[in-house]
This record gives sequence, C-alpha cells and structure tokens, in this order.
Amino acid sequence: MEITLDSPLDMHLHLRDSQMLKLVAPLSAQSFAGAVVMPNLVPPVNSAASLHAYRNRVEEATKGEIFQPYMTLFFQSYTEQELASLRPDIFGIKLYPAGATTNSEGGVKAIHDAEGTMKIMEEMGIPLLVHGESHGFVMDREEEFLHVYRHLATAFPKLTICMEHITTASAVQLLDEFENLCATVTLQHLIITLDDVAGGMLRPHLFCKPIAKRPEDRDALLQAALAAHPKLMFGSDSAPHPIHAKEACGCAAGVFTAPIALPVLADLFERHGALEKLQDFVSGNACRLHHLTPPVKHITLAKKDMTVPDVYEGYGKNVVPMKAGETISWSIRS
Amino acid sequence: MEITLDSPLDMHLHLRDSQMLKLVAPLSAQSFAGAVVMPNLVPPVNSAASLHAYRNRVEEATKGEIFQPYMTLFFQSYTEQELASLRPDIFGIKLYPAGATTNSEGGVKAIHDAEGTMKIMEEMGIPLLVHGESHGFVMDREEEFLHVYRHLATAFPKLTICMEHITTASAVQLLDEFENLCATVTLQHLIITLDDVAGGMLRPHLFCKPIAKRPEDRDALLQAALAAHPKLMFGSDSAPHPIHAKEACGCAAGVFTAPIALPVLADLFERHGALEKLQDFVSGNACRLHHLTPPVKHITLAKKDMTVPDVYEGYGKNVVPMKAGETISWSIRS
Repeated sequence: MEITLDSPLDMHLHLRDSQMLKLVAPLSAQSFAGAVVMPNLVPPVNSAASLHAYRNRVEEATKGEIFQPYMTLFFQSYTEQELASLRPDIFGIKLYPAGATTNSEGGVKAIHDAEGTMKIMEEMGIPLLVHGESHGFVMDREEEFLHVYRHLATAFPKLTICMEHITTASAVQLLDEFENLCATVTLQHLIITLDDVAGGMLRPHLFCKPIAKRPEDRDALLQAALAAHPKLMFGSDSAPHPIHAKEACGCAAGVFTAPIALPVLADLFERHGALEKLQDFVSGNACRLHHLTPPVKHITLAKKDMTVPDVYEGYGKNVVPMKAGETISWSIRS
Repeated sequence: MEITLDSPLDMHLHLRDSQMLKLVAPLSAQSFAGAVVMPNLVPPVNSAASLHAYRNRVEEATKGEIFQPYMTLFFQSYTEQELASLRPDIFGIKLYPAGATTNSEGGVKAIHDAEGTMKIMEEMGIPLLVHGESHGFVMDREEEFLHVYRHLATAFPKLTICMEHITTASAVQLLDEFENLCATVTLQHLIITLDDVAGGMLRPHLFCKPIAKRPEDRDALLQAALAAHPKLMFGSDSAPHPIHAKEACGCAAGVFTAPIALPVLADLFERHGALEKLQDFVSGNACRLHHLTPPVKHITLAKKDMTVPDVYEGYGKNVVPMKAGETISWSIRS
C-alpha cells in the first residue's frame, strides 16, 4: 500500500542553529515541503537582521531540497513601523510566556503588556502563535491558560491565534468556540500519555513541554487529528537536544520526531481507517487556514517496515529520535 | 538549636544487596536505630534461608553501629507451617502488585488469590505491608488502589495493614476510616510534587514510585506528618540506584534519602513550628503501632549548615542523593 502526500507541512518546528541546524534541517527537508520555524534561539530572532540571517542559515542547511521555511519572530513589543517592514518575511510571531520552555526566558511576563503589539498584528494580518501554558502545576498549565486564549480571541476578533502543540481535550473543544482560533498538535501527543514518560521507567526522550497528559486528553487529540478537524494542523514541535542534555541529571524538554513523523502518522491513520484524512491534517488545513501555497512536492509513503535509527549523528552532534531502534510499518519511498 | 531524637526508625527502607548494601547500609545505621528492610531483591526474600542469609549480610554491613534491621518477607502464598516458623524472624510481609515497581515481577497478580495467606497472617498477628498501586494511569494508581485497602481492612479486621509510602490526600483520609490501617510516608513526598520531577527540567533523581502527585496531595501529607498523625510513620523508601541507571534512556525509580532524611525533616518541622512532633513521627508512632522496642540510640540534630554530597561512593558503586550539592540548615551532630 502507498499514499502520496502533496506538499506536507510541519507547522511547528525547532531547527536550532549552527551544527545542530546542519544535522536536523535536512531531515525535515526530506519529509516536508515547508515548515514553520521557531524563533527561540539564543538570543531570540527578534529583528530584521537576525531573521534574515537565520533564514539564510536555514536555506543553506536545506540546499538542494524543495523546502520552504516559514520564518517566525520572537514575540516582544514591536512598533507598527517595525512590523510593517518585517511583514513580508514572516509567517507569524511566536509568543512564549517567560520561562515556559526552552530558551523562553525573554518571553512575555504579562499578557496585558503584549496587547498593543497584538493590535498591530491584527490590523496587519500577522498570525499570533502561542505557547499556551500558565506557570501552575505541570498537568494543569495548558488548561489554566485557556482563559487567555478566550480573552485574546474575543479582544482581537480578526487576529489569527494559533494554540501551539495542544495537549488537552479542553483545548480541542476550544477550537469550536472561536472562529479565529486554530491549533497545531504534535506526533507524540497523538500517541503517548504521561504513562509513557513516567509510568514505567522515566523516559527522557519522551519528555517535552507541554508534558503529555491523560489518556482521555490523548484520545481527544487523536480523534480530532483522525477526523482532520478543520482548525487543527500537524506541527511536530520536533525539538532536538544532544544526548548529554537528555540523559542527564536535569533533562531538557523536547522530542525529536522530524525524520519519522510522516511514516508514524501514516501508520496511525491507517490503523484507525483514516488514511484519506492525512492529506488535510498534514497540509490541506494549514494551506486553507493560513492561505499558504507551499512549493509543489510529493512525498510517497509505503507500507514497508523501517527500523528507526538509534541516533542521528553528524557535525559533531547526536540526537535520539522518538521510537529509536523500533521498527515501524511505514516508510518514505525514496 | 539542637534536638535529640530517641531511637529514630525508618519504617520503609531499601538496602539492596552486595556492594550497594555495603555502601548504603552504614549510612542508614548512622542515622537510625532500626529500619524495616524491604525484601525485593533478585530473587526476592521469600524463605527462611534467604531471610536469614540477607539479615546476616545486613548485620555484617552495619557492624559496629546500633541498628536493628526489621526484616520482611516478599508476599506470596505461604502455608501456616511456613509462617509459624518464619514468624519470630520477621516484622511483616510486603505485598507488591506484580510489576508495580523495581523487582516486583514476582508480585501478586490477583488480590483474591492472596487472601488465604492474609487470613493466616491475621491469626498470627503478622503485619501486611502494601505497595498500593493499580496498573492504571500513573497519577491515579494510588487512588484506584484504595478500594483494595477498604476491602482488606474490612475482610481482615485484626490484620494490621500498612499503606506504604502514601502520596495522596485520599490515602491520608483513609487512615481515619479503618482502625487497622496505618501508613508510612517518605521524605520526598512531604516536599515535592510532580512539578519538581517534570515541571522544569526532568529530574531523574526525584523520580520514584509512586510518583510525586499534586500540590494538594503534598500539602495533606505534610500536614499529617507535622501533626504526627497517630497512624502515620516515617518510612524513607530510600531506594538507591547507581548513576548509570538514573541518568539514562530509561531511568529506574527510586530516590536516595537515607543519609539526609533526619536533617531535612528537622528543617521541615522547624520551619513549620512542629519540631516537638518529630519524635512521634520518626519513632513514637511506629513503636506504639507495631509494639516495637528498638535499641536505645540517641541522634542529636543541630541547626548547623551541611552541604549534601554530590554523590556517595564506595565498593565500586555510586549513588546521587536527594538535594545533592545543596546546603541544608540542619545536620547530625557527630
């Protein structure tokens, strides 16, 4: 069995920088026609200069592949003039609550202070992408943030607000409440729960933010994905860290899924009899919601076993992928 | 400021075996007058021969210290004759649901099948110590097991049943429902929540089973401990694993607290104005509930800074303690 996807998109991707960028960017470019590239570098991507320089490095790292990087800015206060000049080069602006995840220390401390910039974004039609977590108890953080989405969706009715990497049944429900809310969901949150992270042995390579939640949350996310819910897009949040930062006394948050995402999704959708919905989930919804015309690229997935590498290595870096060493029943036809 | 504790007891302790036993047993013997020693070795302690041999090894490892090991048997079906001959040498029998934690593969698969042995234990006055977790979602496992405690406490009204290392507010409440239920609680569950394990970086050295729960659970446990709730005893569940088994792709469950438990408890009880309750929490309640007369031993704790070692090493083993490298404001006066 085979399925050919037209221009699959990864709507939430961490490519990092320097040697790690060189290792992981080609792996995304082999699977996807484009990806929304996160701006949480050190220092963050928050100016025309840093944006252009980073885009050049991404393009250099993916040279030879058909791959459109959709660049994002790190949310801070921007003037109308700044945003007008940045507008042509960005897909959206990513808001991190300060300290919520990797390299988010310079994020937003109070949503109220961010609303001036949001007003300008609304007027210019720049999407707001949000890491939506409170600073509360780890299992409650997304749920506790939902009132912020409600507030923003109401206050800025023409602003496109994307709830990034949603992890709860409540966030899925919220999609249907506001016209201007959409969401991305990762591969791992369709598959795992906290049980997989901490129910048996502790699994650092499945640890990410937001953390995987309860079985009923996972089930709601999976049902929405399998139905290609029209407001939901695939965004891997693939977030590489070197092994020494994962298997350590304090393990960094992030699951690396870029090279295996499409085959694992094909397997998941096939097992649930929803293979015909995969195109919309990995591309169609994103193109419609964000008015994208990605480069034409066909990725054919075949029902053929593939053993996931234990580690991806190169440029002096190493990253352990999700499902390392496991055999999965779909693969990308080269 | 100083406080002298009479014969402090650790009512739940993992000493392991071989070289690890030699490393960690003296550290417990320096703080405590005695400890209830868990039987989940490989193979488990489940016969007179293995019990006597293990006790001898524990005594050898703590030679020169005043330290009473209270030995336990691994729960399985035992005959009346077996238990009659074992009775003088054991403190109690520890029941593990199969697969619930480290080295519990040979545990109980169905509680119903265990009731014959429990009946004999009730008649002989042998306490039943229980790792009370279901096989459900990791945050619900203790709560889902409580009905088993209710059933056993009702079915065997003269059997002393100890809920080991309780982690939830619901388990604290259950203490007051049944005369024959008591409980132990660890140091870490009085202090941490899942936030400390997985809310920031993932912290393998704070990962244990049952996993740390919600803030309201931690608060209920702490209030019960600070009040020296008469059915609650200190049991560290100190559970050493070598570094390579903790900072790994799959991290073993267990927090190593034996050498720091009393100073950290003194600090905790002092900060909450409950220092006068510490004696009952770490000894008095256990002596009364289990009719123990531990060896006379006085441990004096002084309000004097101590820096916790990064690692305890010896006999070719290494173990990272809780609060490694941190300075705590109480120490044991030598």
